[in-house]
Amino acid sequence: MNIFGVIDKKRMGNALSKEELELAFMGYLKGTVEDYQMSSLLMAIVINGMTDEETFDLTDLFLNSGTIIPDDAIKGTRVDKHSTGGIGDKTSLIIGPILASLGLKMGKLSGKGLGITGGTIDKLNSIPGFNTSLSMQAFINSVQKVGFAECEQTDEFTPLDKVIYSLRSVSGTVESIPLIAASIMSKKLAVGAKCILIDIKVGEGALIKTKEKANELASIMVKIGEKYNKKVIPVLTDMNVPLGDNIGNALEVIEAMDILKGKENDLSKLCITLSSILYKEAMDVSIEEATEQVKESLKKGKAYDKFVEFVENQGGKISELQVAKYIKPVKSNVKGTLENISALKTGELALKLGGGRVKKNDEINYGVGIRINKHIGDNIKYDDILCYIYQDDETDYTEEALKIFTIK
Amino acid sequence: MNIFGVIDKKRMGNALSKEELELAFMGYLKGTVEDYQMSSLLMAIVINGMTDEETFDLTDLFLNSGTIIPDDAIKGTRVDKHSTGGIGDKTSLIIGPILASLGLKMGKLSGKGLGITGGTIDKLNSIPGFNTSLSMQAFINSVQKVGFAECEQTDEFTPLDKVIYSLRSVSGTVESIPLIAASIMSKKLAVGAKCILIDIKVGEGALIKTKEKANELASIMVKIGEKYNKKVIPVLTDMNVPLGDNIGNALEVIEAMDILKGKENDLSKLCITLSSILYKEAMDVSIEEATEQVKESLKKGKAYDKFVEFVENQGGKISELQVAKYIKPVKSNVKGTLENISALKTGELALKLGGGRVKKNDEINYGVGIRINKHIGDNIKYDDILCYIYQDDETDYTEEALKIFTIK
Repeated sequence: MNIFGVIDKKRMGNALSKEELELAFMGYLKGTVEDYQMSSLLMAIVINGMTDEETFDLTDLFLNSGTIIPDDAIKGTRVDKHSTGGIGDKTSLIIGPILASLGLKMGKLSGKGLGITGGTIDKLNSIPGFNTSLSMQAFINSVQKVGFAECEQTDEFTPLDKVIYSLRSVSGTVESIPLIAASIMSKKLAVGAKCILIDIKVGEGALIKTKEKANELASIMVKIGEKYNKKVIPVLTDMNVPLGDNIGNALEVIEAMDILKGKENDLSKLCITLSSILYKEAMDVSIEEATEQVKESLKKGKAYDKFVEFVENQGGKISELQVAKYIKPVKSNVKGTLENISALKTGELALKLGGGRVKKNDEINYGVGIRINKHIGDNIKYDDILCYIYQDDETDYTEEALKIFTIK
Repeated sequence: MNIFGVIDKKRMGNALSKEELELAFMGYLKGTVEDYQMSSLLMAIVINGMTDEETFDLTDLFLNSGTIIPDDAIKGTRVDKHSTGGIGDKTSLIIGPILASLGLKMGKLSGKGLGITGGTIDKLNSIPGFNTSLSMQAFINSVQKVGFAECEQTDEFTPLDKVIYSLRSVSGTVESIPLIAASIMSKKLAVGAKCILIDIKVGEGALIKTKEKANELASIMVKIGEKYNKKVIPVLTDMNVPLGDNIGNALEVIEAMDILKGKENDLSKLCITLSSILYKEAMDVSIEEATEQVKESLKKGKAYDKFVEFVENQGGKISELQVAKYIKPVKSNVKGTLENISALKTGELALKLGGGRVKKNDEINYGVGIRINKHIGDNIKYDDILCYIYQDDETDYTEEALKIFTIK
């Protein structure tokens, strides 16, 4: 069989063997299969799906295309956490320090953001000096020493996933449960954590729009985990409304620090919940016990101290963090009750401000973003400030910003 | 909407508007849409199909991307003929001269062969000196003067179809009725004939494997014809067995001349039938009258003379036509009745001999091929010669050649 045979088989809706998947996917990595052949195969997979067996095999190809950190490379109880991506999602920057302050080891490999959803790597790169390109050994040493490290996925880890992910993002072949599952799980498996929490965002501002799809993704990820003797804990969370008040790279780092210092909102609640679940699963304690530990760490400032240690360990200078030149308040031109804050429209505005990438190699402006000033259920009067736009140009974004809020 | 929106819409199985098709397809021609984006869109079209309206719109985009010969550019009754491609299919080289000898005008634009099915352009290029690259004016003049001309599709005509066809052939996105229909019909419409006979080959040696698909293709092509006020005449013919006795470029030119000189076999019968149907439709006479005219032209040698005139007009020197160095007989190692001659296996052997292209720019050897010496139903004895292999290397192809024949 050659690449045409593989494409044809999937086009007709049949399952591919591991050898056939290898021929196509490893062929692509090695350059014997072309971009346009892989993208037509990917579209056939997106439309016709993959069996569980195919998804396991593809995960294995992704995983074994690069370095794998052995389970015992890092001493201690290793956990990991992944979010499928949403607007304002800076939970990793809060959960990582909380769990590290409680003695767990969390090493996270992340990607850059594309489209309306940001990437944690971009958020970290907004901190001057922060090094997101660690060698494998430096990454392991950091996790061992600090308990939390985060760096960009390099060619060393799952290089096959990297090239496939890039191609998917530019060829309209992102929306596939098996491809998403294999991509996420191979990256998590390469790092070797024992317990992996997957925060599946569901809603208009997320990649996954429906609960049905989210459950499908959760199910296959748990099965992949079982194959490798890992505990995968899927959690479905809402992404119709932005997470937290700040959207934009530097602004999100600031909000993460605020939460670690004690600020309370929807985001702090979610982070406490997710941290507690992961602590419970990893340490085999009750959820009450886990929650108490997490709250204690936040209250005593241990989680915040761990965040500072984490940033300094990777060379970041928090004091030099900068936001955009202009901060423009957006005032309400109606009165009523704030019924909705659209995650999708917030993400689109952040992208327009220059805070995200439309194309893979776009430069981004770390300082721009939106700070939301009102919450759902609030009573809004004329001229109440709904949000602040952080911008470096002098464009008037009021119209777009007002569309984020539904006031009735 | 941008290219991602168009890909997404088709991925989800929705119909695209003409503007959306234009954005994607003309964008590809202009270079704003990438190979890997077009191939994923093509795969979505292959799997999810296209409505008649979409197929009309795509045909129109293909057609209007290049030069169109006006209906009145050539005086006389203009006909055209297309075959969807099969093994040993040299009917154009026979039908063209027959109809031209009867006063009709047939100008044919053709492509080169790819894979197991040959292309008429390659057959003509086996004649030393034959020029298959005519300018539009030279093509028109030739049709006007000789009544029959055939040249390679150039960038002048349907350039959009040309780039899409190339991409489809290398991205596993060939098997789509709407894409095949738009591709064939746009090329035919660009030439401007009044009556167009489409010979749809069905069987294991053809692109279209089932009668059901063939009928679907026939139906949409007739509908496209109606849109442009053209009479499209679809004819379904078998392609499980090779057409005629000779397979290979120069060998097929030789067989075409043999038929024009009076040789009778399955191929001569098919050519008389197809010529008669096309003559009847173009001239509005009865099928009996048409058949008589066709047979008369063959009998009197007028069709053969027209073939010679056609070749000479395009610079070809028939007397210099050459076949391969070695002609090796393949003898039967069993006895019984010849039950089948596999078109697919004949095509594969011809390809292996070097008579076809695996990749687009492969060089081909015009002289190699297979000459079949027995027919279905023949009684076969040990050592009877089943076929002759025309080859330039010294490899022993006996084993592959024997597999072509089913003797029981």
